[in-house]
Amino acid sequence: MAIITRQQDPQLQPQPSLLPFKYSHRVLLKTLLDRQDGGRAFAGQRVVVGGWVKTSKEVQKPLPPPAPAASVPHEERFIDREKKGDKDISCVEMLQSRIPLIRSIWEVFGGGGYGRSHAPSRKRIESAPPKPATPPPPQLSTAYLLITDGSCVASLQVVVESSVAQPSNLLPTGTCILVEGQIERPAKEGKHVIELKADKVLHIGTVDVDKYPLSKKRVPLEMLRDFPQFRPRTTTVATVMRIRNALSFATHSFFNGQGFLDVQIPIITTTDCEGFGKLFQVTGLEQKADKQKLSTIHETDGVSLDIVKAAAKEKSNIVETLKRTESNREALAAAVQDLRKTNELVSQLEAIEKKNLKSLSSKDEAVDASRDLFLTVSGRLHLESYACALGNVYSFGPRFQADKTDSAKHASEMWMVEVEMAFSQLRDAMNCASDYFNHLIMYVLETCHEDMKFIAKRIDNACFTRLQQTASGFPEMLSYNEVIDILRKVEDKKFETNFKSGVALTAEHLSYLVDTIYKKPVMIYDYPKEAKPFYCRLNDNGRTVAAFDLVVPKVGTIISGSQNEERINIIHSRINELVLPREKYEWYLDLHRNGTAKNSGFTLRFDLMVLFITGLTNVRDVIPFPRSYGKANN
Amino acid sequence: MAIITRQQDPQLQPQPSLLPFKYSHRVLLKTLLDRQDGGRAFAGQRVVVGGWVKTSKEVQKPLPPPAPAASVPHEERFIDREKKGDKDISCVEMLQSRIPLIRSIWEVFGGGGYGRSHAPSRKRIESAPPKPATPPPPQLSTAYLLITDGSCVASLQVVVESSVAQPSNLLPTGTCILVEGQIERPAKEGKHVIELKADKVLHIGTVDVDKYPLSKKRVPLEMLRDFPQFRPRTTTVATVMRIRNALSFATHSFFNGQGFLDVQIPIITTTDCEGFGKLFQVTGLEQKADKQKLSTIHETDGVSLDIVKAAAKEKSNIVETLKRTESNREALAAAVQDLRKTNELVSQLEAIEKKNLKSLSSKDEAVDASRDLFLTVSGRLHLESYACALGNVYSFGPRFQADKTDSAKHASEMWMVEVEMAFSQLRDAMNCASDYFNHLIMYVLETCHEDMKFIAKRIDNACFTRLQQTASGFPEMLSYNEVIDILRKVEDKKFETNFKSGVALTAEHLSYLVDTIYKKPVMIYDYPKEAKPFYCRLNDNGRTVAAFDLVVPKVGTIISGSQNEERINIIHSRINELVLPREKYEWYLDLHRNGTAKNSGFTLRFDLMVLFITGLTNVRDVIPFPRSYGKANN
Repeated sequence: MAIITRQQDPQLQPQPSLLPFKYSHRVLLKTLLDRQDGGRAFAGQRVVVGGWVKTSKEVQKPLPPPAPAASVPHEERFIDREKKGDKDISCVEMLQSRIPLIRSIWEVFGGGGYGRSHAPSRKRIESAPPKPATPPPPQLSTAYLLITDGSCVASLQVVVESSVAQPSNLLPTGTCILVEGQIERPAKEGKHVIELKADKVLHIGTVDVDKYPLSKKRVPLEMLRDFPQFRPRTTTVATVMRIRNALSFATHSFFNGQGFLDVQIPIITTTDCEGFGKLFQVTGLEQKADKQKLSTIHETDGVSLDIVKAAAKEKSNIVETLKRTESNREALAAAVQDLRKTNELVSQLEAIEKKNLKSLSSKDEAVDASRDLFLTVSGRLHLESYACALGNVYSFGPRFQADKTDSAKHASEMWMVEVEMAFSQLRDAMNCASDYFNHLIMYVLETCHEDMKFIAKRIDNACFTRLQQTASGFPEMLSYNEVIDILRKVEDKKFETNFKSGVALTAEHLSYLVDTIYKKPVMIYDYPKEAKPFYCRLNDNGRTVAAFDLVVPKVGTIISGSQNEERINIIHSRINELVLPREKYEWYLDLHRNGTAKNSGFTLRFDLMVLFITGLTNVRDVIPFPRSYGKANN
Repeated sequence: MAIITRQQDPQLQPQPSLLPFKYSHRVLLKTLLDRQDGGRAFAGQRVVVGGWVKTSKEVQKPLPPPAPAASVPHEERFIDREKKGDKDISCVEMLQSRIPLIRSIWEVFGGGGYGRSHAPSRKRIESAPPKPATPPPPQLSTAYLLITDGSCVASLQVVVESSVAQPSNLLPTGTCILVEGQIERPAKEGKHVIELKADKVLHIGTVDVDKYPLSKKRVPLEMLRDFPQFRPRTTTVATVMRIRNALSFATHSFFNGQGFLDVQIPIITTTDCEGFGKLFQVTGLEQKADKQKLSTIHETDGVSLDIVKAAAKEKSNIVETLKRTESNREALAAAVQDLRKTNELVSQLEAIEKKNLKSLSSKDEAVDASRDLFLTVSGRLHLESYACALGNVYSFGPRFQADKTDSAKHASEMWMVEVEMAFSQLRDAMNCASDYFNHLIMYVLETCHEDMKFIAKRIDNACFTRLQQTASGFPEMLSYNEVIDILRKVEDKKFETNFKSGVALTAEHLSYLVDTIYKKPVMIYDYPKEAKPFYCRLNDNGRTVAAFDLVVPKVGTIISGSQNEERINIIHSRINELVLPREKYEWYLDLHRNGTAKNSGFTLRFDLMVLFITGLTNVRDVIPFPRSYGKANN
């Protein structure tokens, strides 16, 4: 930072303009402080600033020297009133400064002490004994408030005399103030190169000190999670949210620059794109009513669809377990056969039910839609249909998984960036994913320098090197089989899960690969088909699919992508293999029956990208209002 | 458009670079066609292009002139083969061109005819009778395909000889092709100034002509709604989606430029921000299990919470009806009193139930969260808590209303831009909303010129004037009371709804105001408190709140905003007045108990903005996958 010497009087130089924020007439702290000179050039200007108190202290008025001789040492924070003249010093203050005796009495009754930190002062003031005979002179003091307004890491020192506002209202952490005053250079330049001498207090939002969760210093992140409405007032969460914002804009600027179109993908859907996790179900009020009708019909029918459905679910679980254990191929085949039959029965019953409902309800579509509506897991299939018309498209929105887990990398509601490109293949998607990933890193390094300096100071001191190396290098490229070979040769570590071909790599495997072996991002491609969703394109060997993952240190899989299967007969057989409800994918099958193209795309887990950039370890700390199993209280 | 004369031979001038799209090696049609010269400068270059057939025709090979004398007139679409030399003309073609007799025989058997449109040709080829004795010469023809790839309005003519690919596979509308070839200037410059002479077909995605919904020409928009996966292949929907994309990017660039932070607001919530509409309920699988437990408890308790809740709901409806009719103030007061009692009973029962559940379940929070989770209606309260820390924030995401309606302006899932600014007041929000609204219009006019030309041609021929006038002017500013006075004086129109103070204006009133009286956007402010949500700031008169709406011609209310109530006691009393479940707003009340500020903000209904720009009338035509009551089939 360039140091401006005292000789360079800002009053003599043309002052930079200090524009207030257009829609609130206050000056953002960023405008004031986020400069090479820390704001020195603005000294002497009048401004309105607003913000929340981070820390504060109250300093009692010291005695000015009885004579002009400067024999009494000034307290560090003492503001030299002489410069401003005495006109705003009240009579009482005059009295106080002249008669040391009165001052001593005050101190005995608890009014004294310099440099105390905030909050306790209020109680002490309250406990000062009343003096009915001679009314007690008011406690004259100066409040030093360090305020932040969220626009930058830096905070501003605001100095408020007790003659301007009651310090007890201002001092508690979290207090909101809007003040007007003059920017000054402090007598002694310490931590702050400028401060605001407030002479008007326009607004105070007080704090209930006993209940306000941020009253304590340094509340741990885990504890802050219970107060999502307050935690952006901490420097750490505010910094993370500014970086998150930069990543969001970098996403839009990258894709807009490349000519991609932003397409909003629906949240309410009938399509389970992945087929692996649990889904959130959605019901509106009408839909409940329909369900009641449904159950009436079941009873009169003598056949319960619900029971058959439950059986299908159970059988599906058995198939899943058999697939995982791979212990008995014959048992698996039999179970799959059994499941298919049950599913057929479900379809038949559903058809009967639908027919019955048609006679009951005049609004057929309403009934159709009332069943099996979910919150979307992934928008890639919907997005692909837009790619098959508009070429290159992307989407940025929330995606949902209802799985009950406490994983630090999972929340029920996470934001994803999904990309789909027509006429492109696996390598194209890998290149695009890699370029986008690097763009995000470079954008943050270029635009969030102060925020990243804070991250380096508090969370990850190697963040600059780590991110610069990542963005300037290339990820290690390995096929799934190569990864398996590499991990099989590892001798210094015993993995909990054994390797079996066809099985997804676990977090433990991936972590060893990127954290211990390569110490940099690894791109894994050509996965066994069992480990990936049905729409990934089958390779010529019939065993692997054209899918890839970008795995990064500490965080894990941050991007997953694939070339999509364009051959209708293979999509059919994959849907059958995975025993998916084919009628739900008819619209997607139609897409590939009519003007199918070779498409590829990928998904970036946006919240995990924020983790990767900041070095934090739990997604709950980087999502504004995190939702997970049993956690949604606003 | 500047016309380049023949003298300006593009071959002699330095050719502009023709970069393929980075991630698919094909050249986007936008790169090729979206230029002043329509792509003439690229003549002679080899490219790969991909797209979908919009229209096509097959032209049978005509006889070239028997002698060099140009006495035989060329058919309009005839390509002068002589220029390319005869090397790619097959022996059969040679034969055909020399012997008129053979040609006549073909024509008799259905092989002839120029300029027919697509599709039927296939059947005719199939019905050509086999000639086993002398094998029939293949039907030589040229396919002219007009293809579009979604990157721009313009389409490219691709010329494919039957010797390169079977025309029957290429001709149907919707067919996907990826072809390589040379850009040429057509012999006669008609509608197209360049065309692609394809000599390699790299991919064909055929179409099931009988089932493909876009086979017919000009399918109406209503019909297209049933095929959201295909409709962006129509020029209208593609154009709308490109404009929608521009509006999305303009949103991010506006707020980013002003220093706002993008904050992602949760979809799953317990908070009903508006309190007016119906909500979608969300359940995960665990949550269902909890509900079963719940009902068990009800029965053993001997008091059914569900029944009491139903009663509360019914009473709430009565209150609403009484409020609307305003017929009997005493009856309303009594009903409100009654409702409060019922709500108290609900609270008591819920407390009992919660206690019981605690003993049943070890995971208390899970149970808490399992009840009353909804899809968010508005993120403004959540956003305000971030504004109360970061200053100026915005959010762009989907919002939900489960109301059963066929309104052309409503869908269950609509995207909203929400904005919240700390330390700002009603006028600030109105100014910001107005600037943002104008920015959106100007951005589209500046960046989507070709798209808007198409809109002017097909949908709204006054769109340019309309949008330019809107963006360069200011909205009419009227208080709610002024609007009522103006509408009361209207004599030439009888409104269905009468005016009563305290009642929201209906679509009919608003339409008359902006479409008939002012013919431009109107900003209405200071609404009666009954017409707005609880968080709008009460004005000093105690009757109106600091809320506003921006109402635009044809579309209606496109932006709603307010200054938010910062005084905790007034928020309390507003929540009581509206009989809202206070425990759900505790987190929001906490926000204003601790460091409250004067905040203001607004919501832009993004989908309605696309309607306003394009002149379309139904939101279902501008939302990629619209969801409404009974409509969600993918």
